[in-house]
Amino acid sequence: GSFVGDKPDVVGVNDFVRTKIPFESRANLAKSAVARRLFSLMASKRTNLCLAADLTKGDEILDIADKCGPYICLLKTHIDIVEDFSESFIASLKALAARHQFLLMEDRKFADIGNTVSLQYGKGIYKISSWADLVTAHTLPGRSILQGLKAALGGEDAAGGDVAAERGVFLLAEMSASGNLIDDKYKETSNKIATEGGDVDFVAGVVCQSANCFAFPGLIQLTPGVKIDESVDKLGQQYQTPEHVVKERGADIAVVGRGILQAKNVAQAAQTYRDRLWTAYTERVAK
Amino acid sequence: GSFVGDKPDVVGVNDFVRTKIPFESRANLAKSAVARRLFSLMASKRTNLCLAADLTKGDEILDIADKCGPYICLLKTHIDIVEDFSESFIASLKALAARHQFLLMEDRKFADIGNTVSLQYGKGIYKISSWADLVTAHTLPGRSILQGLKAALGGEDAAGGDVAAERGVFLLAEMSASGNLIDDKYKETSNKIATEGGDVDFVAGVVCQSANCFAFPGLIQLTPGVKIDESVDKLGQQYQTPEHVVKERGADIAVVGRGILQAKNVAQAAQTYRDRLWTAYTERVAK
Repeated sequence: GSFVGDKPDVVGVNDFVRTKIPFESRANLAKSAVARRLFSLMASKRTNLCLAADLTKGDEILDIADKCGPYICLLKTHIDIVEDFSESFIASLKALAARHQFLLMEDRKFADIGNTVSLQYGKGIYKISSWADLVTAHTLPGRSILQGLKAALGGEDAAGGDVAAERGVFLLAEMSASGNLIDDKYKETSNKIATEGGDVDFVAGVVCQSANCFAFPGLIQLTPGVKIDESVDKLGQQYQTPEHVVKERGADIAVVGRGILQAKNVAQAAQTYRDRLWTAYTERVAK
Repeated sequence: GSFVGDKPDVVGVNDFVRTKIPFESRANLAKSAVARRLFSLMASKRTNLCLAADLTKGDEILDIADKCGPYICLLKTHIDIVEDFSESFIASLKALAARHQFLLMEDRKFADIGNTVSLQYGKGIYKISSWADLVTAHTLPGRSILQGLKAALGGEDAAGGDVAAERGVFLLAEMSASGNLIDDKYKETSNKIATEGGDVDFVAGVVCQSANCFAFPGLIQLTPGVKIDESVDKLGQQYQTPEHVVKERGADIAVVGRGILQAKNVAQAAQTYRDRLWTAYTERVAK
């Protein structure tokens, strides 16, 4: 702006500096243990691709997870659209995650009062907290959403470890749907919820569409709506290219769904997205 | 305000006029067929009580639905916290709804892009659209949330009827959690989504905390967080009395959860809430 030189815009610089820091360094800055794990995994496996496995049949999800597993850091599920959900499906999914080394994120978009999200996270058929390393949540209900989710984790797991330390949340600070109601004030408050207060150790990252959404380099930016062919679907979803979201939009992890799911060869498509996303990232940090 | 007399505040008057109109008259004004059904049922059964059956065991939900059924117009579920969910549970719940004459609302708070909510509403283990007369949805993703939900309903049911006409949505324009991120602009846009555009026939009402949230008398105001003893729970939920929400806050239907669930005699508690809420309503329209 007009003050460059005399009065450098320090806030502006900080806003973007995180996108220049390599993942392995950011792992050390993260306050969430799961974020540290995920940053390290991304750096060692050399992938910042998240596959959105939005399929309604368990076997199809397992098949695509097995084929794309080598190329992804994260597999994102909508468990409540799976028509033949079972405990053995979860066991198989966890086995694939361990074999191919990726984390599991249930994209539940929790958005209720604390007491309810606590039950939704820990109880019911899905028992999400028992298998999903990460979940997504809206900040709409306020800070109590973090307290509610944490309440579901209780204190210790069967082995005496700290359960909360093995789990994390991605908070939504922006949405990719056209005409959504999120404005600057909403984003600012979401940023505060993600970075201030006693529950920041539970926040692994932020789901958003732009680099200036948050500054803290210990958080991971997850950006959905990524497709090699830019487009808009008939229900308002907007797509952007891998290079654009990583270099211009600040995405650390890019979420690809239909771009891979609808490919003739899903493994090859995953590899292509992995390559283009990783190259964009290395160019971003090298610049 | 200061213009009373010379320049009457017409907008202000319209904002509150709907709370003076009896339910049976408002039934004729509703654009949603389910809203018409619900208004008529409230008027004939003389109840504006919604029971929030936030329990994790199917049998407990069926038991409380049977005991409280005679006093309620609506039973609200969080189906994803039920640990022993099954198709026979849904069949039993529907039978109780038919016997005692109340509608079913799944409080799913849909909050994703159109394509995803379409799958979450119609698919998965729960097949919510097949049994829930009503669902709740956040307006956060914008207008596409209505299009996405409608897309799940397809065209016709097995009997050749219009499925969409038998289903409806309550849109959240406010939340009862302290510190939530909803502001005046958000409320205003929510109001527009509920009352303008091609999908208004699918909107049965608005979940909110105050009478000035919307003006159109064909929509139903559903207000959660109601308890005879006002209080705040340890996860940020705020409670208000039956009389306060109906008379001061404009609630047409009041949602009571823990006030009934935690009572020694749940049927008696439901009757007490029904009596107090209905009396408050009759006094409100008589004034």
